[in-house]
Amino acid sequence: MTLPIVSLVGAGPGDPELLTMRAVKRIEAADVVLADDLVDPRVLALVKGRLLRVGKRGGWPKLPRQQELTIPQGDAQPPWERPGSCISTDQHFIHALMIREARAGHRVVRLKGGDPFVFGRGGEEVDALREAGIDVEVVSGLTSGIAGPAAVGIPVTDRRASPGVILVTGHPGDGRAEPDWPALARTGLTLVIYMGVARASHIGAQLLAAGLRADLPAAVISAAHTAQQRHAVTTLADLADCIARERLPSPALLVIGEVAAHASAAELGALARSA
Amino acid sequence: MTLPIVSLVGAGPGDPELLTMRAVKRIEAADVVLADDLVDPRVLALVKGRLLRVGKRGGWPKLPRQQELTIPQGDAQPPWERPGSCISTDQHFIHALMIREARAGHRVVRLKGGDPFVFGRGGEEVDALREAGIDVEVVSGLTSGIAGPAAVGIPVTDRRASPGVILVTGHPGDGRAEPDWPALARTGLTLVIYMGVARASHIGAQLLAAGLRADLPAAVISAAHTAQQRHAVTTLADLADCIARERLPSPALLVIGEVAAHASAAELGALARSA
Repeated sequence: MTLPIVSLVGAGPGDPELLTMRAVKRIEAADVVLADDLVDPRVLALVKGRLLRVGKRGGWPKLPRQQELTIPQGDAQPPWERPGSCISTDQHFIHALMIREARAGHRVVRLKGGDPFVFGRGGEEVDALREAGIDVEVVSGLTSGIAGPAAVGIPVTDRRASPGVILVTGHPGDGRAEPDWPALARTGLTLVIYMGVARASHIGAQLLAAGLRADLPAAVISAAHTAQQRHAVTTLADLADCIARERLPSPALLVIGEVAAHASAAELGALARSA
Repeated sequence: MTLPIVSLVGAGPGDPELLTMRAVKRIEAADVVLADDLVDPRVLALVKGRLLRVGKRGGWPKLPRQQELTIPQGDAQPPWERPGSCISTDQHFIHALMIREARAGHRVVRLKGGDPFVFGRGGEEVDALREAGIDVEVVSGLTSGIAGPAAVGIPVTDRRASPGVILVTGHPGDGRAEPDWPALARTGLTLVIYMGVARASHIGAQLLAAGLRADLPAAVISAAHTAQQRHAVTTLADLADCIARERLPSPALLVIGEVAAHASAAELGALARSA
């Protein structure tokens, strides 16, 4: 007997035209889709089966472990599907839900913003599914750390400036080790920081102390490839002040390095959206 | 008058199902497509307009600058379209060709393997088009440095092991500075190295000298998401020997870090291909 396949699908940065062909196929064919909060509503609109929102909302109460054991069966409306529900979903609960749905013979899509294997706990979900004996495939998606800068004209690598790029999170969470900012500074590579807005002042200070130039170009891109996309270009020394001044909200990316100066006044993303 | 738009389009790692919806639209609508060598033949099969191959073949003679000034007009077959042609196309020639086609009112797609802004000289091409007064959009694609490891089950980031990933080229080319391998080693992040097969022995020695563990997991993935996909998992100390022993050809990715141990025996890419 072939066990049903769970697909971990990358929803990309927002605009549904940036989904891969395979992602669209999997989403449309799914009986049930477990979606993160960061997935764009226009992508969710493609879902034809049941849509379960399993976002991990920072600062909201976690669903107690006990509730994992009493997942409502059938069509009863579980708490995370109630309108206005403000439950932050525990990672183990997501695993249990995927396993239950897969064992029920359903085609399951686990839909994650960006790429499932870039800051998405995709590795943990694959492990949990394999341990349960369930086949899993990964459908990569565009990660906002590369597609976001591109939307405003920034190539994250450029042989004229840097032989590579570092993708790192500014918010490791759950007591995980913080990136070694001085070590990152010394690589000379472009730095792209996910979830760094709240800690931009701290990160900037660490990078300056490690020897990066105060006037090194830096860019902030909010909500790339969504209708709310905005960006600003400044210098490393001014980065935190710029975020406050321009009121650039999360989710946002920080890009630090010579390539940030390539950001255009006219957004390439806007061009793409109107084309 | 609105000048025609040139689209820099990412062709992804190989499998045409991993193209974005927008990439497919742009390729199918193009009057002329300028394609790199690394673009998969199944992707090229989507081209309905004229297809010009403008690959930069390493070690082959460059098209002399003089020939840039005498690009054949109309339907005459230029040298880079002749069957069996072994001309390595100069970057400036590609710029001139895109500008000429755009000014002739054609819809131009510049089709690049992976993502146009990751090791693709996309930044230089955008600059050249803008300087010529031509509008350009960038359509991001899946980069093989993330989608390739995913095809064999490797999450390039995993909060259990590393707060980020470094994408770097092992072959900067044209006298450009080599990555600072000791500095990269000290970051503690996952290392993904493009075009590193030929220099794996040198790179491995530098990383070991900088203090990375000899038994740190390392993976090699050849031709990810193509019919020729193959991979192997080993340790950092054995990396170069493993490439020789398993005869893993270019193009290939090297993944160095704890996450490399997640590579599955059964390739997730194979699952995806048969689904």
